[in-house]
Amino acid sequence: MNMRDVILKKKEGGALSPEEIRAFARGAADGSVPDYQLAALLMAICWRGMTPEETACLTMEMMHSGSVVDLSAIDGVCVDKHSTGGVGDTTTLVLVPLAAACGAKVAKLSGRGLGHTGGTLDKLESIPGCSVNVSIEDFIRQVQDIGCAVIGQTQDLCPADKALYALRDVTGTVGSIPLIASSIVSKKLASGAGAIVLDVKTGSGALMQTVEESIELAKAMVEIGAQAGKPILALVTGMDQPLGTHVGNALEVKEAIDILAGRAKGDLLTVSLELGSRMLIAGGIAKDVEDGKARMRKALESGAGLAKLKEMITAQGGDGRVCDDVDYLPHAAYRISVPALSSGYVARMDTTAIGYCAQALGAGRQKKTDVIDPAVGLVMDVRLGDVVQAGDSLATLYLNKPELAGEAIARMQQAITIAQEKPELPPLIYAAVSREGVTR
Amino acid sequence: MNMRDVILKKKEGGALSPEEIRAFARGAADGSVPDYQLAALLMAICWRGMTPEETACLTMEMMHSGSVVDLSAIDGVCVDKHSTGGVGDTTTLVLVPLAAACGAKVAKLSGRGLGHTGGTLDKLESIPGCSVNVSIEDFIRQVQDIGCAVIGQTQDLCPADKALYALRDVTGTVGSIPLIASSIVSKKLASGAGAIVLDVKTGSGALMQTVEESIELAKAMVEIGAQAGKPILALVTGMDQPLGTHVGNALEVKEAIDILAGRAKGDLLTVSLELGSRMLIAGGIAKDVEDGKARMRKALESGAGLAKLKEMITAQGGDGRVCDDVDYLPHAAYRISVPALSSGYVARMDTTAIGYCAQALGAGRQKKTDVIDPAVGLVMDVRLGDVVQAGDSLATLYLNKPELAGEAIARMQQAITIAQEKPELPPLIYAAVSREGVTR
Repeated sequence: MNMRDVILKKKEGGALSPEEIRAFARGAADGSVPDYQLAALLMAICWRGMTPEETACLTMEMMHSGSVVDLSAIDGVCVDKHSTGGVGDTTTLVLVPLAAACGAKVAKLSGRGLGHTGGTLDKLESIPGCSVNVSIEDFIRQVQDIGCAVIGQTQDLCPADKALYALRDVTGTVGSIPLIASSIVSKKLASGAGAIVLDVKTGSGALMQTVEESIELAKAMVEIGAQAGKPILALVTGMDQPLGTHVGNALEVKEAIDILAGRAKGDLLTVSLELGSRMLIAGGIAKDVEDGKARMRKALESGAGLAKLKEMITAQGGDGRVCDDVDYLPHAAYRISVPALSSGYVARMDTTAIGYCAQALGAGRQKKTDVIDPAVGLVMDVRLGDVVQAGDSLATLYLNKPELAGEAIARMQQAITIAQEKPELPPLIYAAVSREGVTR
Repeated sequence: MNMRDVILKKKEGGALSPEEIRAFARGAADGSVPDYQLAALLMAICWRGMTPEETACLTMEMMHSGSVVDLSAIDGVCVDKHSTGGVGDTTTLVLVPLAAACGAKVAKLSGRGLGHTGGTLDKLESIPGCSVNVSIEDFIRQVQDIGCAVIGQTQDLCPADKALYALRDVTGTVGSIPLIASSIVSKKLASGAGAIVLDVKTGSGALMQTVEESIELAKAMVEIGAQAGKPILALVTGMDQPLGTHVGNALEVKEAIDILAGRAKGDLLTVSLELGSRMLIAGGIAKDVEDGKARMRKALESGAGLAKLKEMITAQGGDGRVCDDVDYLPHAAYRISVPALSSGYVARMDTTAIGYCAQALGAGRQKKTDVIDPAVGLVMDVRLGDVVQAGDSLATLYLNKPELAGEAIARMQQAITIAQEKPELPPLIYAAVSREGVTR
């Protein structure tokens, strides 16, 4: 196959055949197609898009470019959940134990923090002793025994996606719905999930900044599921401010425990219940969203969710006592408030900038090789629509290097807009997308 | 400078700054920007285009990426002429001696055959002894002495264009007006020309298949000239059939000599006079197109043009006797007619296919390393609109390997459409493009 002809076909707006997509994906995985041809084709895909059939085909080819995890030894449908990435977004640590406590089987391969967004693996590793490097055999056994496990991806998962993602990052071709959709879903399918619930973030802290684009992405992923014969449900949820109040690894674990212990509520819990209820539907446990939410709430109120988290942490070698006493989590040495510079309404947050602020304190990596500090981060003291007086605390920085405070304070003050007019608050749940259509 | 941000800017439809274009062109020339980023940016340029300022800037950066020939030692304005490439298009060998005989200074760096189109260097080398590998010093001396020289490009001309052209070829990004325009004009400017006349081919044998695209390309190149302070004039001319009747290297030299000797006429002469008259205007010799054409015709009728060609061939080491007796040119061993399969009007020619047919006989290269056969090619026995009877000769193949005849005959029969209705003949000169505008 002549890859130049494949590029030209896409450049002219044509749809690629399964054979052409296979040559592209395999060429990326095994290096048989040079990077410059892959890069040109990626940009042509950004330009011309892909049909649902092409997107599904690319997804399946990337999925099959490496090993596929076989979860058939686990009884029942394994349900997985994936977020497109947010700030203060630790729904996984809230909903996985709740769903497992309701009887769902959750076998989750997770990722590390990327850019301004956090990653579940980094959060779990902030728990003393907790490991995410678990063999697939132990992973399956753990899910079979206690109903849930969250571990790191195996090395040989979707090598075609790995190669293409690295190339997209340096060639400005990340922003394309078929490329994003196939990248996410290929990894989820290769992880062996039987059903998938997706949380597509939208707003100032999200990859997709407009609701319409986010819904398009959700539809593209649901459609891939339909073509691959795996049920995929998606919610489009707001990321115009950090979802929880805590941003940073141990800080987010603390917030998840506080929620499971009934000491905290808010948007993070609301979104966790919405997503979790759909996992229970996908897993054949709940009959509808209301039933699912009721079951999740019951597991929350009974303490079964917190107990399940403790079981999971313990099974992965971690210190389960953190669930009883969050003081066992690592602490930052300094807490410094970010004062409001004027009085008025909290009208807007640049959530991406807030994420990068936490990253700069050491909660995330600027380069892949950076070592993160599990204890540092920030806690938001205000939410959109709040009234503040000049001097009130907008957020509290948790840091081990006090010399970083000055710049972080200025960044936070710039990231939060205070206005005289009362702002209209953005919705938390924008839409639910399934094969039946879009419900707003 | 972060090249990803440059790519993203173009992907979003923005105009690149001179600094960004410099980083792109220099990065291509010195390898400091990886191929995959260059490829992604090239595809984004195909998608979003470039403003006239960006195109002129890219041209100047590519021109200055290598050495620039200094022709200031030559008295008067050096005029150059360039064709976007055609079949049976040997205007250079007709108009260069005619224009020089009229007093113009023509210092022409030329190219080799590419794809289905011929190259002047290959044609000149079919003349026994004639060399195109001439030092720049000897080249300048020859132009100063006899008024014209046609030689090969120096190695270090426009390395940025060389690198980008090679990449465009394999990444399907050849077809973009700003990229084509900057590639052509950068080489002409680096060749030291003071004024340039361009022949933009349009039709079934041309890079640009529609007249509108061809006019856009002509306008883009004229605009670069305006921005660079070098006068550029362009004609858009027809390539819906081979321009001359002869296709192949020695065969085209023979046709040029036949025209200069007054033994042949036709479209090749018409286009040569149109282009040459504009070279005389650009060189400050003729006051308008009619005056220029009258001067060219006088040089033709007096035999001064043929004498000038003989001078040029002799100066470049070639056997000047070919101008007196074309039998000194190499001969093919076999001549085989291509019979018409039906009767009717010659309605359409796939001129690209005719060019590839000559290439397959050995007149052109399929790979850069192929050795061409100067003697082979074909002579068209019909032109568009002619009436033929089944069995009449459409073309005569000149070949040294008779075993190639069968496939070549079938190709030619397929390339020429015979219809029952009288076809409308396409124009030969579509438009003239200058800074003053487009004249049709």
